[in-house]
Amino acid sequence: MGWGDLGAFGEPSKETPNLDQMAAEGMLFLDFYTASPLCSPSRAALLTGRLPVRNGFYTTNGHARNAYTPQDIVGGIPDSELLLPELLKKAGYTNKIIGKWHLGHRPQFHPLRHGFDEWFGSPNCHFGPYDSSERPNIPLYRDWEMIGRYYEDFKIDQKTGEANLTQLYLQEALDFISKQQASQQPFFLYWAIDATHAPVYASKQFLGTSQRGLYGDAVREIDDSIGKILKHLQNLGISENTFVFFTSDNGAALISAPKQGGSNGPFLCGKQTTFEGGMREPAIAWWPGHIPAGGVSHQLGSVMDLFSTSLSLANLQPPSDRQIDGIDLLPVILQGKLIDRPIFYYRGNELMAVRAGLYKAHYWTWSNSWEEHSKGIDFCPGQSVAGVTTHTQEEHTYLPLLFHLGRDPGEKYPLSFASEEYQRAVEHISGLLQQHKATLVPGQPQLNVCDQAVMNWSPPGCEKLGKCLKAPESDPKKCSWPH
Amino acid sequence: MGWGDLGAFGEPSKETPNLDQMAAEGMLFLDFYTASPLCSPSRAALLTGRLPVRNGFYTTNGHARNAYTPQDIVGGIPDSELLLPELLKKAGYTNKIIGKWHLGHRPQFHPLRHGFDEWFGSPNCHFGPYDSSERPNIPLYRDWEMIGRYYEDFKIDQKTGEANLTQLYLQEALDFISKQQASQQPFFLYWAIDATHAPVYASKQFLGTSQRGLYGDAVREIDDSIGKILKHLQNLGISENTFVFFTSDNGAALISAPKQGGSNGPFLCGKQTTFEGGMREPAIAWWPGHIPAGGVSHQLGSVMDLFSTSLSLANLQPPSDRQIDGIDLLPVILQGKLIDRPIFYYRGNELMAVRAGLYKAHYWTWSNSWEEHSKGIDFCPGQSVAGVTTHTQEEHTYLPLLFHLGRDPGEKYPLSFASEEYQRAVEHISGLLQQHKATLVPGQPQLNVCDQAVMNWSPPGCEKLGKCLKAPESDPKKCSWPH
Repeated sequence: MGWGDLGAFGEPSKETPNLDQMAAEGMLFLDFYTASPLCSPSRAALLTGRLPVRNGFYTTNGHARNAYTPQDIVGGIPDSELLLPELLKKAGYTNKIIGKWHLGHRPQFHPLRHGFDEWFGSPNCHFGPYDSSERPNIPLYRDWEMIGRYYEDFKIDQKTGEANLTQLYLQEALDFISKQQASQQPFFLYWAIDATHAPVYASKQFLGTSQRGLYGDAVREIDDSIGKILKHLQNLGISENTFVFFTSDNGAALISAPKQGGSNGPFLCGKQTTFEGGMREPAIAWWPGHIPAGGVSHQLGSVMDLFSTSLSLANLQPPSDRQIDGIDLLPVILQGKLIDRPIFYYRGNELMAVRAGLYKAHYWTWSNSWEEHSKGIDFCPGQSVAGVTTHTQEEHTYLPLLFHLGRDPGEKYPLSFASEEYQRAVEHISGLLQQHKATLVPGQPQLNVCDQAVMNWSPPGCEKLGKCLKAPESDPKKCSWPH
Repeated sequence: MGWGDLGAFGEPSKETPNLDQMAAEGMLFLDFYTASPLCSPSRAALLTGRLPVRNGFYTTNGHARNAYTPQDIVGGIPDSELLLPELLKKAGYTNKIIGKWHLGHRPQFHPLRHGFDEWFGSPNCHFGPYDSSERPNIPLYRDWEMIGRYYEDFKIDQKTGEANLTQLYLQEALDFISKQQASQQPFFLYWAIDATHAPVYASKQFLGTSQRGLYGDAVREIDDSIGKILKHLQNLGISENTFVFFTSDNGAALISAPKQGGSNGPFLCGKQTTFEGGMREPAIAWWPGHIPAGGVSHQLGSVMDLFSTSLSLANLQPPSDRQIDGIDLLPVILQGKLIDRPIFYYRGNELMAVRAGLYKAHYWTWSNSWEEHSKGIDFCPGQSVAGVTTHTQEEHTYLPLLFHLGRDPGEKYPLSFASEEYQRAVEHISGLLQQHKATLVPGQPQLNVCDQAVMNWSPPGCEKLGKCLKAPESDPKKCSWPH
């Protein structure tokens, strides 16, 4: 989902009344970022509070490549990483993930081995359908075992876009919340739905209800579900005791636009890029009775802050034996403070850009290669900015491209290298960059090796369902990450 | 000002709390249009309820050219046109214009000869400063006579951007409203401020207060002023008896971006074009006690509707002896109805595009010529869409370019000519176009002839001020309208 996909963020169809209401009752973050322009690394960062380059969710197969966890990936979340639910357990929380895990699908990476108590959802994206000989369909799990596969047992009609998955995920969330409330147990629910990820889908009752086509229908169903979850918290009388945060793991995928891709509002390019359209996210904090209604914050925030903020809410300390990139946002959310901190825009293990205050310096620019672009893969459709949305990897480390995101949120007008404003801002940002790089200890890269043998051929529980498939011979290779 | 310049419309600095509050208390129009991508024709359309091609505010000097009223223009609003204030007079209204008139500066075009009772402002844009020999500075009028000139008596500091004009215009508005309330007289106030038009300015107290630079400062001052005007209506106890509408006369001028140009949000290009960025406008209706708070309308609206709507509010009928393009929006505003009507996008006397429902068909595309573009004049910076933002005038009358503005508000993905959806939509729109063209009676074009002798050398009242300048010989020529 993109920054511009919500009514509260200026989507011209304004079809998200529940999220807009959530914003009106809570706090809207206008300068909130994900930790990577792609899904898996962002989610790993959210749950560890650490940049992907630290927690291993990156590749070194090529320079500045985006990588994720397709089902032939060998790696996943290392045991050495401490995930938010692992820590929350110590404070008595019950932790549930509903939806896409995306931190590795092999047994050692299973979410229930990394702090979650319950799971309903899939380890990978809902790509498919596959024919089960070249590639198995993605399984859905309930807790330790699979309960079926996408397209086989959990239908997604590619022609009409109909699928009732968001409804299943909603019901699962409502039930979990009810159960926790009944047993008076604190809980962490990671509601990681994926209806706006291509192939986009929505339930029958939402199909055709939007001005924006199938993508808008999916947004409306998510919006409706969030309204129901918030209402449920209120009905159960626990809304003042429950902190809710809404955000996304990357900008709208413009490559899927207009039918399956959303809006990044006034920002440049989309998913896969380190321009604002790739990493600036819609974000709303909601906690009635605590967060003043109608708040708007310009705090530079990150999905990694949800790690630190959640720990703070549970009166826990973040681990002290490692670098945590997230910060505790409670002073921002509850007292309206602004905390000075930079935003780092990575692609793989290359630091592409840094934002401090309203200035953003690009040290590298790249959308994708000419070769990919010539195949019609375009992350910036209709948005070519000369010297900025480059199709060759352009190094600017000695003379960064600088933008003022207040005057120029669309990153279209680089500041003059000769200006005093440029000198001052770049000096400041380059200092932050040096400090960051000097203390950086990269994790072991997890997204380098792919092997068809590790795909979801025979997930645990497949025997009971008669859904085990025979894996081919192991043939580990470097994964191909073209952009 | 552009669609994307207000917080309520998703501007990422969210610095318009008063306009956002106005929207929260009133109705936000998401699909509201001006009648021309340029100022003078839009304003003529607003005050006559008629398209510029009917009321004469266009040129035939070239094909599909934008034209306005610089101070060497010979034409202006014809006497045959009936302006909103002329009609409101019949219902006892006192009419005042504060700010830019722009419907002709020669004596026969004076606003007090066209229905206004009072005027404080200028006949033209605040361009300058001029040296008074080649070109006089633009005068400001109080009612019939000039009271000074821009840059001479009404300072605009081009270096700092400081000018207190919006404050003068605000005070003038507050005083007028107080006077009318005291005398229990109904009034029409046309508050036509121009601080966001280049050269952009703001008062000292607003300079540097925005994240968006000088342009943002100007927006903030306008926002603050509107807040004060609404508050004043409330304090005087007449807010429930006063209909207020906020909108703009063209999209943000991206050619002035980023320092002096605003945001058109997710829309394509800016001022001067018939893409959405040139003509879709922010729009808010406010009338406490009548308009339900927090309303959002997808009604296709136009500045020309303000003519018909205002007449309706005053229980007056629109003239029946001519075609009126505006419609009465009261059923939309008060009862939430949706009225089926197309939007016509003109450039000069060429109908460039037509919108019906969510479909927009372009019959001609043109941003500007390669010649102009090569001089750095760019109405679509960073937004080139192949075959759409063309630099040659491209005719598509036999096979219009069709966009679905719900799925694709940015006009980046033309629908396939071969699709059923295309056939159906184009058939419908082409029917509307034919009907429109069949009944169109173009007015006498007013913006063809320019003459240096008619400039503001010696406006009425100049003698008292010692500010009369000698006009050069008359030398009428075709005005040059390059785009």
